[in-house]
Amino acid sequence: MAELFRVFTVEAARSILSEHLPQKRPGLKVPLLESLGRCLAEDVTAVQDVPGFNRSTMDGYAVRARDTYGASEGMPAYVDVCGEVHMGRAPQGEVKTGQSWRIATGGMLPAGADAVVIVEYTEELDKRTIGITRPVAPGENVVRRGEDISEGVVALPAGHRIRPQDLGLLSSVGAMEVEVLLPVRVGIISTGDELVSPDQCPALGQVRDINSYTLYGAVMSCGGEPRLYGIIRDNEASLKGALEQCLGENEMALLSGGSSVGTRDVASKVISSMGEPGVLFHGLSIKPGKPAVGAVVGNKPVFGLPGHPASAMVVFDLMVAPLLQKGSYPVNPEEIQMEFPLRAIITRSLRSAAGRLDFIRVKLSHCEGQLYAEPVLGKSGLIGTMVKADGLARIPVGKEGVEAGETINVKLI
Amino acid sequence: MAELFRVFTVEAARSILSEHLPQKRPGLKVPLLESLGRCLAEDVTAVQDVPGFNRSTMDGYAVRARDTYGASEGMPAYVDVCGEVHMGRAPQGEVKTGQSWRIATGGMLPAGADAVVIVEYTEELDKRTIGITRPVAPGENVVRRGEDISEGVVALPAGHRIRPQDLGLLSSVGAMEVEVLLPVRVGIISTGDELVSPDQCPALGQVRDINSYTLYGAVMSCGGEPRLYGIIRDNEASLKGALEQCLGENEMALLSGGSSVGTRDVASKVISSMGEPGVLFHGLSIKPGKPAVGAVVGNKPVFGLPGHPASAMVVFDLMVAPLLQKGSYPVNPEEIQMEFPLRAIITRSLRSAAGRLDFIRVKLSHCEGQLYAEPVLGKSGLIGTMVKADGLARIPVGKEGVEAGETINVKLI
Repeated sequence: MAELFRVFTVEAARSILSEHLPQKRPGLKVPLLESLGRCLAEDVTAVQDVPGFNRSTMDGYAVRARDTYGASEGMPAYVDVCGEVHMGRAPQGEVKTGQSWRIATGGMLPAGADAVVIVEYTEELDKRTIGITRPVAPGENVVRRGEDISEGVVALPAGHRIRPQDLGLLSSVGAMEVEVLLPVRVGIISTGDELVSPDQCPALGQVRDINSYTLYGAVMSCGGEPRLYGIIRDNEASLKGALEQCLGENEMALLSGGSSVGTRDVASKVISSMGEPGVLFHGLSIKPGKPAVGAVVGNKPVFGLPGHPASAMVVFDLMVAPLLQKGSYPVNPEEIQMEFPLRAIITRSLRSAAGRLDFIRVKLSHCEGQLYAEPVLGKSGLIGTMVKADGLARIPVGKEGVEAGETINVKLI
Repeated sequence: MAELFRVFTVEAARSILSEHLPQKRPGLKVPLLESLGRCLAEDVTAVQDVPGFNRSTMDGYAVRARDTYGASEGMPAYVDVCGEVHMGRAPQGEVKTGQSWRIATGGMLPAGADAVVIVEYTEELDKRTIGITRPVAPGENVVRRGEDISEGVVALPAGHRIRPQDLGLLSSVGAMEVEVLLPVRVGIISTGDELVSPDQCPALGQVRDINSYTLYGAVMSCGGEPRLYGIIRDNEASLKGALEQCLGENEMALLSGGSSVGTRDVASKVISSMGEPGVLFHGLSIKPGKPAVGAVVGNKPVFGLPGHPASAMVVFDLMVAPLLQKGSYPVNPEEIQMEFPLRAIITRSLRSAAGRLDFIRVKLSHCEGQLYAEPVLGKSGLIGTMVKADGLARIPVGKEGVEAGETINVKLI
């Protein structure tokens, strides 16, 4: 059957899919607090400096730095205390040579002052005078106006996925609503005459549907909106009907199962009958996950994932997750490296075929500061192997395996 | 002021809080598809073997393995094709010596068969006979009954956080509802007379509230249920009122800001006035994040987080996140290591104080298979430093800094 397959590398498969996918996804304005985990549809530009004034980072005294030069515990610099900065208010007045104002963390520096001496390096001589026991440089213990974000700069670029700290940055520039990419709606279809819904008790020869549930979770984890279309029997008419409905109601379809040769052919035929360009690759040079189908039907990606649960998850991770998270595949080598950001020492030698990218389920552990990856052995048809694993290791193409003790790249799963 | 602080190490702070926190959190039965990211409240035990029968992992022929011994391309082993396994049905009949049945991936092995020869290693002699060109061992290309999960074993233990693959495991054992720990409701209060809500335009001396938003996102990311209680002015009566309401409606309270000495004292006083045991530590031997307060009021944790946004996030990560995710702090050294699972080479030397745990915001990059961490310099009052960073590095206590080129532990942020 091998000659019927159009087997692609992951890179080539990503590249051909990218050619046929829409460049721009629609955006939607959402309240800031609902934007976590979503990707910005447009740049967010700061319309003001943050902070809008020079701000103390410590409790102490606002001074002119040069008044403190040469100060020491033996010979403090004495300055008058001429005022106090009230939080949240602009101080009225100016710090002149030989003067200081009391200031708390977050307070606005009065005019004239260019540094803050922290309270620990002062001694109160009387209510009106302090001795400073350590010099400060101009700008010390001060956040300058615009030091966090300057007016006019792009605070966060389009495409950026919003993390908790980004919510803080957006709040600091007053972005109470942000335009985010609409989550991708993903329809999930399981195929296979042997499958029953998990709420049924399987008879001999039957198994409960696993892939619908792992894929549902995987789509959720990537910020997509999954919707289950149930179990479809292995025939052209049922599959065509289900896929039509699924593509009508979603921006992406995931089929899984049907990993027997006949079914694969049916799935490919049905997909290609539904629109251009149809099936783009039929097989990936990876293990597990080889019998994967990638297609585009009228701008919507359709993936035929392997029936084996672990294989389906590996293909999802490589081919589907980036589209849901970022809307595109990583292209530069550094981004591709960062898909598997951990470096771990493999504890067991494993063989691989040259020219094939291998993914190994691993159990991670730490010992004396080193991260170790113990391969979880077991067939890719066993969901238990994915559950025992907490990492997925990538063994590069061109290596005929790895030796115990070698360092490999891993991602958490 | 230092003598007024009860400064704890992270380990000691976690330990004293643990003594006062409830051992068991309430659970709730939820539909399987709503359980992603939640922690199991009880063990899930398999009531049946998965799969419930010996299952082929490949397309081919079910055989008795010993009939294939010695087979080669030059001298194939010939067997009769006596039946076909239909997907989802128990085959009626038995594979006898010298016989085989057609079988597809996922099909149930007929009685008598103990292995599957894949179709690529067979040649069709006629409709009734095949030649096998490679021997198979017993069990080859077969998932044995119960090989994925055996009846009676704990499929997933109480406390386990449900990932996409776990949804698959749970569906495979028919767990359509699971008992999960209720998400922790977390009330968030920002304090500070200089703060305005992000929907307002700050006057001179004022800044927009950042911490409410970063903490809201951080709580969400950890599976908690955040609720904002707005900005409270720096006085005892306002704070007491807000905290009372917050603790009445939630299982945890996070205060932030009030990092000036006077405010810290007010916060501590108010917290301790609300119930036993009150404030347990007042300061952590970490940087950033030293001015952190930890308390328990009537079984509910209350944290006073620093006002500086980066500091507040570091303390959240260390002290709050584990409670929301797992309900407890990691205790064994390996779990503690896994809080910072990445190993990266730091690109710049940094000084630290001995006896203090330092956390450095870093920007990660890959080069020739190595992971590098470039420190993001900048004050912990700048939210921009957390936004530029994609990792947080931990510099161990007892080291007086790190040298460029040393390997350090990092987590993604």
